Order: sequence, then structure tokens, then C-alpha cells
Amino acid sequence: MSTPPTGNTATRRSVVLKRRPRGEPDASDFELQEDAIPSPGPEEVVTRTIWLSIDPYMRGRLREEQTYAVAIQIGEVMTGETVGEVIASNHPGFAVGDIAVGARGWQTHNLSKGDHLVKIERHGAPLSAYLGVLGMPGATAYAGITEICKPKQGETVVVSAASGAVGSVAGQLAKRAGARVVGIAGGAEKCLWVQDSLGFDACVDHRSRDLRAELRAECPDGVDAYFENVGGEVQAAVFEQLNPFARVAMCGMVSQYNEHVFPPGPNLGFVVGKRVLIQGFIVSDRPERLTEWRMLAAPLVADGALVYREDVHDGLNNAPAALGAILTGQNFGKLLVRVGPDPD
Amino acid sequence: MSTPPTGNTATRRSVVLKRRPRGEPDASDFELQEDAIPSPGPEEVVTRTIWLSIDPYMRGRLREEQTYAVAIQIGEVMTGETVGEVIASNHPGFAVGDIAVGARGWQTHNLSKGDHLVKIERHGAPLSAYLGVLGMPGATAYAGITEICKPKQGETVVVSAASGAVGSVAGQLAKRAGARVVGIAGGAEKCLWVQDSLGFDACVDHRSRDLRAELRAECPDGVDAYFENVGGEVQAAVFEQLNPFARVAMCGMVSQYNEHVFPPGPNLGFVVGKRVLIQGFIVSDRPERLTEWRMLAAPLVADGALVYREDVHDGLNNAPAALGAILTGQNFGKLLVRVGPDPD
Repeated sequence: MSTPPTGNTATRRSVVLKRRPRGEPDASDFELQEDAIPSPGPEEVVTRTIWLSIDPYMRGRLREEQTYAVAIQIGEVMTGETVGEVIASNHPGFAVGDIAVGARGWQTHNLSKGDHLVKIERHGAPLSAYLGVLGMPGATAYAGITEICKPKQGETVVVSAASGAVGSVAGQLAKRAGARVVGIAGGAEKCLWVQDSLGFDACVDHRSRDLRAELRAECPDGVDAYFENVGGEVQAAVFEQLNPFARVAMCGMVSQYNEHVFPPGPNLGFVVGKRVLIQGFIVSDRPERLTEWRMLAAPLVADGALVYREDVHDGLNNAPAALGAILTGQNFGKLLVRVGPDPD
Repeated sequence: MSTPPTGNTATRRSVVLKRRPRGEPDASDFELQEDAIPSPGPEEVVTRTIWLSIDPYMRGRLREEQTYAVAIQIGEVMTGETVGEVIASNHPGFAVGDIAVGARGWQTHNLSKGDHLVKIERHGAPLSAYLGVLGMPGATAYAGITEICKPKQGETVVVSAASGAVGSVAGQLAKRAGARVVGIAGGAEKCLWVQDSLGFDACVDHRSRDLRAELRAECPDGVDAYFENVGGEVQAAVFEQLNPFARVAMCGMVSQYNEHVFPPGPNLGFVVGKRVLIQGFIVSDRPERLTEWRMLAAPLVADGALVYREDVHDGLNNAPAALGAILTGQNFGKLLVRVGPDPD
């Protein structure tokens, strides 16, 4: 990433897209730009970014062809959810000093009309949690588990990317519903954490030589529900072990987001005979689910009943590298960029 | 098929499985056996078969490995739904002369406890209709359209195997819901019938050189629901044109039923971004749907509002060839074997 001279406190820094990445995104695909911190117009609000969320879906926004959102254009500020502090406001809903989540952009300061901005009631949780366990990722897990996977007592639920921001919550929710929960994660360290700290019944390393056999050993009664974050070989292995009437929540397929051409998928013949449900979903289609989730989950986070882990990268200029890391599974927990200090 | 000397009217003829077919089933995989027409024990009933239904799912029963039913064993009578006349009964629910649907078996006479046997109220429809438009195929179309595809006024619905027993009903139901309905069928003759007689808005020949382009031309607003009977290249072409929030009723994938190893399927990345629902179903899971459907559809059949077509093969010994034909798309309409004469 080409960087202008370090700005002073009166300037805003923004990360813009310089060219569409081929394969894994890289710092050289972005550019750091500076301008003056904006002043709010009528009904507008300016926040100072404290935390920036890095999520796998962002890779999709860098593609020219889009399925459900608008592509980031060359020269445009990269999108991403933030938690920030209001530093100037002509908006009746926000006052200087308020903490708000929902401003979008890889930048130190964000000007908006307040449309998607929500004031945070902290409930004893740290601010960063509002981008992870209490944010879109947590609400995504909640929607996928309650609306699609619908685990019943004694059923077996498999969750891929189990140590990630979404998977870690999905599995804990399935455990609370009384299911046997088996995670899939990359590497022994993550698997250990998923079992010991998140309380999954088991966790299988997708890098192991015989994923199918290990999965079968941990799911002796087959798989009743699958929370899919990964795709590829992991998907193929889990699909083979689905039981009749299984439910698959299709949340993401991060293993292929850097691919230019997507590989073939599983033959779907089994879907008929086993009456399988495969359902894609995006939590932002129903924003009320996020509000509902925050209300339910904040006390669980505050008293430690819902466990989460953060992987923090420091400084806005490290955001492109952080995106590269999440797409190759190098993060361990919810990936965040610390853009500015917490308020006093 | 090896055949014993022609039986007289006091003998029963049955088609049993001689060996598991490799690829397309063939007469030599079956054997015609004779025994005495059975006498009913306590609570039992004997029917004389008039019509035997031939359906694609039967190929699955010939495989050793099963997904939801029990495999036909070597030496066992082949399964299939029939319409018959009661010729002897010790069952309180059935009297000699009753016409009943639901006895199973490729045989001239069927002994049963009456468990799945249903007396037919004719409502002016011919007996054969109770195996097609008013039978499992019709009820399957009804369940898939009303529970999964859920077409809305002005939406586009695609139906594969559109001239078949299930597809022909599925498309007519989607038309009645106000959708634009595009069929896919094999050959110009079938396509013409689907458009002109069934009233679909269009029908694309899956053998045409550029299925994708023709489908796109007939579905200018994309595809909102897909009733899947075929799989393979047809599935791939339709999946590419699904709209956000599309629903796919997975009823069958007949193009691969003769395959020993199933080919790879479509990459499922689109399912997430487009929030697609893919749902497998088998109508017999909810037998009450068949009763409901018969009640609703019988008047529509009687007054010609629901159009259907039958492809009749004569004689029980031609049942194996008929099964071969349906698996390669050589039938045109609901495939039936006439086993015995209609009652006077």
C-alpha cells in the first residue's frame, strides 16, 4: 500500500481500492489517502473510528460481478463496519461523546446521515464485542442456528470455521440447545480452544489426513445440522454424513473466496432421498435480528457464559493484511483492527 | 427376461429381480415367475392388477445401497404401485368388486393386509389416472409447488421433465398461481405439447445446442423457483439463472439414476449470496397430502382443466422395458403398464 506522509490529528486517513486483487488480497491492492476530517452538514454526524471489523464477505465486494451487494469501485473507500465515538453532530439522535456502531468504511473518521448508526448501550461488554460476538457475526450465528439448523436435544450439529467469529457463537448456541456439537477448525491450537474454552464436544482439524474418518468417529449417529462457513473439501466431507431431514445453514464458503473460478460442488442426488434442506442466508436481510440478538446475548457476554476470542491488528494501515489473513485462516478468533484509542 | 410357459387364469405371474442392473435396467435383469393366485388369510385382501405404475424412483430400489427405502433383494418381487380390483377379501374394509389403489408389486395378483390400500371414488376419472395425475406423481407436484416453490403472481418458474407425470402437473399448478412457467423437455414433440396442450409459456429442449442461452431468452427476469426432476447439465443451467431468494424443489435427478458413480454438482457459493433454498422432499412422508390432492384435483381432471397424457405399455412382461424407457426419457407422459382388463 502506498502511504502518504503521516497525517496529523486534523486529517482523516482512508483506505481506498487501487486495483481488483487476483487471488489473495494484498496491501498493494489498496492505497492510503488523506483529506481533512469532514464537518457534518444538516442531519449529519461524524464519528472517530475506534474499531474496524474485518470479515470474509469483504473479499466478495472486491469482485467486479456481485450477487447481492454493489462492488467497491476503484478509488472508493473500502467498506467495513466500525465502532466509533461521535466527535461532531448535527443529527438529533447523536451527541458528541456518544459511542455508536454501524458506520461503514476503512477510515479514521466517518461522515454519515446516521442511517445505520446505532448508539451502544454497553451492558458491561467491551466496545470491540459489538463488532463480533454482539455484532453481525454473533447475530449471523443466532439466525442460522435458530431459523435453519434448529438443533434438537441429542442431535449432532457440525460447525465449520468453528473458532471464527460466527462459528464460535453458532456452536455455543447449538450446545445450549442440547445438541452434540462437533467443530471443524484449522490446526491443533484452534481445535483445542474450541473444545476446552468453547465447550464443543469435539473438534476435527480440517488439515488432518483423513477428515472424513475423523468426522465419522466424532459423529457416530451422523449429522443432523451443518452450519457451513467454509465450502470445498470440508463441505463434501460433511454432506456425505448428513442424516435424513438434515438442515444446512449456508453462511459462507471462505475456502474459495480468493478463487477466480469456483470448483465443482457435491452431487446433489442425496438431497432428494434424504430430504435435506440447504438454505442460504444473510443476516442483514432482517436487521431486527441483530437488535434481538444484542439484547439476548449482552448479559451472557458480560457474565462469561458466552465465550469469544479476538485477534487484534493495530493501525488502519494494517487492514489490508488483516483481510488477507482472514481469507487464509491465519486469524484466531474475531479479527479486528484497532484504529483509534478507546474513549476515556 | 426368462419366461415360463404362459399361465392360465388360475396362476399368478410376478416379475422378480434376477440381478442388480449395471447402468440401464434391461429385461434380462428380471425373471417372470408363476405361482397360484393366493387366498386371503384373516384380515387379508387379494386384488387383481389392472394398472401398474412405472416411475423413475424404482431405479433407486435396485441399488444395493439405499438412502431412504429398503433395496429390492435378488429373487424378490419388484415394487410398484397398482390399481386393482378386489377378487377375494377377509378384510372388513374391502369387498369383492371394489377398485383400490396402493397395492404394491409387479404382479398380476396382490395379497395384502390392506395397509396402504385405498378404495377409489372415481369422480368421473379413468382408473389409470389414480397412478398419475391423481396419484403419487400428481401429489408430488402439488407438494413441491405449494410447500417449496411457492410461486407468486408474475414470478418465473422452471420445471424440468416438463412432459412427465410430475412435471406436467407442477407446471400447470404454477400457471394457476399466476407465474410465468417455462418447461424443459427432451425433443421438439414434447416441447410442443408442453406449450400447446399444458399451456406453459415456453418450453426449452434440453438437447438443443445452447440450453443456457435458450433458457435465458425464455426467462428474461431470471428464475424465481425451480422444480427439479432431472439433475446434470439441466440443473447446472437453471441454477446459474436463479434469482435472489429462489426456491428449488428437489424432486428427482433422473439423468443420473443409471450412473454407477455420480458426477460432481454445481458449486454452491451462489446459495449464500442469493439466499437460495434447496429442499429435498418425498411426498410419501406426508400421506395426507395425497388424499388432499385427490380431493382437489379429481374435479379438475374430470372437467379437463388439468391436462395429462399417458404412455401405455401392454402386458406385465413389458414392465422391465418400460422402466428402461422412463430412465432414458423415451416415454411421453405418465408411463403405465396395462396388466389386466378394466372391470365391466
